[in-house]
Parts: sequence; structure tokens; C-alpha cells
Amino acid sequence: MGNTSTVPSWKDKILFTPGPLTTSRTVKQAMLRDLGSRDFEMIGIIREIRDGLVAVGGATPDQYTTVLLQGAGTYALEAVVGCGTDPDGKVMVIINGAYGKRIAKIAETLKIPCVPLEFPENETADPAVVKKALADHPDVTLVSATHCETTTGIINPIQDIGAVVAAAGAKYFVDAMSSFGAVPLSLTDCHIDYIVSSANKCIEGVPGFSYVVCRIETLKQTAGWARSMSFDLLAQYEGFETNGQFRFTPPTSALVAFHQALRELEAEGGPAGRGRRYKANYDVLVAGMRAMGFKEYLPVEDQGYIITSFLFPTDPKFDFETFYEKLNQRNYVIYPGKVSDADCFRIGNIGRIFESDVKDLLAAIRDVMDEMGFTP
Amino acid sequence: MGNTSTVPSWKDKILFTPGPLTTSRTVKQAMLRDLGSRDFEMIGIIREIRDGLVAVGGATPDQYTTVLLQGAGTYALEAVVGCGTDPDGKVMVIINGAYGKRIAKIAETLKIPCVPLEFPENETADPAVVKKALADHPDVTLVSATHCETTTGIINPIQDIGAVVAAAGAKYFVDAMSSFGAVPLSLTDCHIDYIVSSANKCIEGVPGFSYVVCRIETLKQTAGWARSMSFDLLAQYEGFETNGQFRFTPPTSALVAFHQALRELEAEGGPAGRGRRYKANYDVLVAGMRAMGFKEYLPVEDQGYIITSFLFPTDPKFDFETFYEKLNQRNYVIYPGKVSDADCFRIGNIGRIFESDVKDLLAAIRDVMDEMGFTP
Repeated sequence: MGNTSTVPSWKDKILFTPGPLTTSRTVKQAMLRDLGSRDFEMIGIIREIRDGLVAVGGATPDQYTTVLLQGAGTYALEAVVGCGTDPDGKVMVIINGAYGKRIAKIAETLKIPCVPLEFPENETADPAVVKKALADHPDVTLVSATHCETTTGIINPIQDIGAVVAAAGAKYFVDAMSSFGAVPLSLTDCHIDYIVSSANKCIEGVPGFSYVVCRIETLKQTAGWARSMSFDLLAQYEGFETNGQFRFTPPTSALVAFHQALRELEAEGGPAGRGRRYKANYDVLVAGMRAMGFKEYLPVEDQGYIITSFLFPTDPKFDFETFYEKLNQRNYVIYPGKVSDADCFRIGNIGRIFESDVKDLLAAIRDVMDEMGFTP
Repeated sequence: MGNTSTVPSWKDKILFTPGPLTTSRTVKQAMLRDLGSRDFEMIGIIREIRDGLVAVGGATPDQYTTVLLQGAGTYALEAVVGCGTDPDGKVMVIINGAYGKRIAKIAETLKIPCVPLEFPENETADPAVVKKALADHPDVTLVSATHCETTTGIINPIQDIGAVVAAAGAKYFVDAMSSFGAVPLSLTDCHIDYIVSSANKCIEGVPGFSYVVCRIETLKQTAGWARSMSFDLLAQYEGFETNGQFRFTPPTSALVAFHQALRELEAEGGPAGRGRRYKANYDVLVAGMRAMGFKEYLPVEDQGYIITSFLFPTDPKFDFETFYEKLNQRNYVIYPGKVSDADCFRIGNIGRIFESDVKDLLAAIRDVMDEMGFTP
């Protein structure tokens, strides 16, 4: 085996991606522990993380609870679709990008009837259209929407959609994978029953688990609905409430890192404070990219400050693989595009990065442009 | 939030549990990195882990492949049951403890027809009985057995059972959660199609993912069988083979830790060398416990060296919670029992622990005995 994993962390590349992200030194150092899964300290950490995430959603533990789930963010999406749809129910999936499509694909795999509601990738989902679709499909019991569609970086109007869903009497599920903790929201005001994110996103922990902040009343109505033993949200919740522990081996290292990350979020002023830093990163990025001639894919009014899609320059001297690789060699990691009808690349503003890092990235992009000889 | 997670690791308790386990300092230090999921270094680490685990199973990458799966070990068990049973198939589950029962419960949740084959918890599974049961149930297409039943620590004769399963033409699935990497075996000789373990067991990594070492030919026959998008072993395999990456965000920290852990396993002489250390731990433990008057639950010939169940002393001055707590205060973590028909506690011999640690534990047990005033 090669000697690859012993490079000290200060040599690591800066990650301008949707995650895993650059994390603070202190978050990583928190993992220099061996904690037992039943240890009282571990149980306290789990409790504080669960309560902390409810607070990040602007809610209180009498109405909302956090179900932590081992594994990737997609697992939590599958858990909500599988546990949140009653055996005779139907799920409506609002789609304007790849991550909305993924939820529809999950429903299909689980053989749960699904009503896909598609919008163009460069337009936000329209609550009036959702309202009409719900009137046309009164058998829909769960509606999913994506907060920040990481495909493009667009921000959907989840509060207005939530009002429409609540009025129709359906349950409301928001995929906030890349926004939770950095775009302030109120779970109650948005009428949210389930919101999903992952440890390695805007809370700036390391990957290892995902989570669902659930309305307790809604969750308790789902007994017997789970399509999976591993992804049984109600059983997982009951486990936490009974003895404070995960039902199956917890990702102890990722949990202690996340616990530290939540403290650092608090120190930064919570989601509002973190949002300000990311927004500053975004402003510097977009101003610099525009100055060089790059163009964004989205109209500016729909663009969030989480991640930005830039159109490929039309200059034939531009080649994405070369561009990516040359930035990578300079220790800046950007991300390929995922838009279906336009060639784009993406640059994320999230993780432990600051305006100065974005300026360094811009300088590197200028340098690579000169080397490759293209004009955006 | 409390200031709990900053205690330096050298103050951590020693974990005599089935996992998460005590790990080496170097394994934990490997996590002081921020690696992108698409980074060439990450892709190399994934490749080396996958090949390394095939080698731990005494096999070669032309016949076997490793599918890494985000999340807890139970997830990998559910993935094999859900993907390894064809739509009209039936699974036979050999049970002599709680972990066998869990596999039957998974099949039930997934609505997969299941033939449970139960043996007493203090007896190994009998291949002749399996053979007869398979003759009685010719519609069984997948058979599961547990290698070391962590409930008791018993070691089942997986090679003899494998011969019987292969002769009946069924696929063979072994849950080797607590033994893989420390009890040498040959996947080929045991006729194994799927073997499952987790990152935080005998390879001595940290929790965050599980894995299935699969016979490639068997895996390739399972197209369309998966009952879950997240737990689709064939899709996960195809993802690894196509671009070297996980389909969904990988647990990067746990992966770099595991990569280091595999190197340390190699340095210790592979599964044979590691097994010798664990066996030495076991020998010291059992000799010391017997000398104090404690008795094991299992007959010695069926007892493995992974984890040992000891019967509760009958002295009314013994109380497990107090015993556990007093050892915990002395920084030794043991584990409660899980046997259904006898009161036991368990002591594990696995993880980064040595004979000297076991001797320290024995001294602490003697100390607690004196303090509580019971006689085993």
C-alpha cells in the first residue's frame, strides 16, 4: 500500500465542492478519541446534537425531534420516502434538478406510487402549480421539495410551497441537504414535517451520518410504514428516546466531530452568521468570475449563495477536464456540472472557507486561463 | 454545549466490547485530512481497501470483489438479504443468537419469505441439520450463517455449512461482523458468495461504513433484485468499477482511517497474526477470570477468542449495573450480555488491546469484587 494518508492536513486542497467540505482543524482533532457507543459521554453528545439540530431549524424539542441515521444523505432521503408514505399513499416529488429526480427514483425503487412534478432546471418551483397539482391528485399524502437544488444552486420557495401543501392536508418533506444550517429557516413557518441534511454539509462536520429533523406528531403516525429495518425512522427515534443510543453501531468519530462543528456554528452566530460568511464568499466569487468574463447559468434572483453553476466558455481552447486538473494541481478543487441541458461547472462557497480563499481561487483561475489561452 | 469532546485520546477508556473498539493512535491521526470524494488520492484509497479486503478473505480480485457501503454493519446485512434473494426466492437463516435473529427480522421487514433454522444459543449450528432442512425446502436460494455469534462468542462451522449449501445449489451468505480479519478463512474453501463485516471491528478502523466481499459471478446475477436504492450492491459495485467512486458521499474520514488500519493489519501478519494477539488476550482473560471464580457460558470447545460471555455470579451481592459502573469509573468498558436464557456479561478481546491491558482489566475486576464484596 502506498504512503498516501500521512500527509499533514495543512497540505490538503481547498474544497470548493458540495461536500465533503473543508473542515476546521478543531473539528478533525475532535476525532482523536475512542468512545464506546454506550458511554455516557457519547449519549450526551448524541443528545446535544439532536437538540442542536432542532434549534438550527428554529424549532423546539416539544414539537420537533432529530433522527440521526448512519450513512450518506441519500439514505435519509430514502428513509423519509420509505417511512413517511403510508401503505396506500402516494408521494408527489417536486423536481427542478438531479436531486429531485433522485427522490422520484427512490420512490420507484421502493414501489411507492409517485407523482413527479417537473419544472425547468433554471426556474424555481411555482407554488401555484403545486397547488393545482395537489388538487388534481387528492391521493397524495407526502410532498417533497428541494431547498437548494445542488444541481444548479437554485433556491426554491419552500415556505410558500409548504403553505400550499399544508392547506391540502399532505405531509411536507424538504431536502435541505446543501442549505441546512446556512440558510436560516423556521420549520414551523415552512410547515415542514421532515427536513433532511447530512453531517458533511453546512454544519461543517465530516461525512458519516445524515439526519432528519421531524415533526414529532407526524413521525408518531408512521408506525408500521417503514419499508426497511435499517431505515426505520420511528424505531430509530424510539431507540434514542429509550436509552439515548443508536439502534446499531453509531459513527462515533463523525459524531464527536459534528458535536464540535455545532459549537463552532454557534460561535459564528448560528445559521444567520454562517450564511453571512457564505454570502460574502459568493459575492467575491461572482464578482471575480464576471470580471474575467464567466457567466452564471441561473438568473441572479434565483441563485443561492451555496453553490454556483457557471457556463462553459465557448472558446474552443476551453476544456473542462484540463481546467479542473490544472486547478487541482494548484490545490483548488472545483466540481463538474450536473445540469442536463447546458454545459456547466460548479463552484461551492460552503465549508471552512473564507473570502481570502475565494480570492486565491480566482487568482488560480486567472492563471490557468492564461496558461490554457482561452477567453470566457 | 458542554466541553466534553476535547479530552485527549490517551485518557480514553479501554473498550473490551464488540465495537466500536479501541484503535491505534495512527489510525485516528489519519483522519486529520480533508479529502474530496472525487480526488485521485481518495480513489486510490478506495481501490486499495477493496482489494485489501479480498486478500483478507484469502481470495483474488478475479473471483471476489468488495462492495463498500456507507453506514453500520446491519446495513450491509440488509443489503445482502435485499439484493441477494431473487424476486421469487426464499432465504434460510441459521440462527443461534441475536444476530442470526436480526437477519430473519430483516427478511420479514423486506417481505422476503424466510425459513428460520434455530439452534440453541450454546450450541454450534449443525451442518447435517442444515443439509436436511435444505432438502425439505428446495425453494431456498440464499442461506445465511453467522461466523462468530457476538451474542455469546460461539464460532459456527462455516466451512462445513458452506459445503452443504453449495451441494444444494443455493448461494451462501456469512455474517462475519466480529471475526473477519482476525479468524483466518478462505472465501473459496468456505463456498462463500457474500461475507459481511464493518470498519470498526477486527480490522480496527473507526465506524462509518460496512462492507460485503462478494463472489463476482454471483453478484452479477442479481440485476433488478435490489429492494432499495441506497442498498443496491450491484449498482454500488458498478459505480466503483466505472469511476472508482462511491455513488453517494463517501465517509472519507473513516476510509482514510481504515486504509491506515489495513496497513497495520498487514504489519501484524494479517488475519493469522492478529488472531494470535486476540487469542493471547483471550487466554489471559479466561485464565484470570477462572482463577477468580467466574464461569463462562459456553463449552470451551465452541468458544472463540473474539468475545466471551461470563455467567453472572449467583452471590446476591453481585449486581451487574454496579459492577459495570465501577469498572467504567476505572476506565475499563465491558459489555452487557445478550443471551436469552441466561444472565451474562461479555468481555471482548478485539481492538487495539494487548495482554497487558487484559491484565489491568483483571486487576480492576478483582478490585471491584473486593469493593462490592461478592464471590463469583
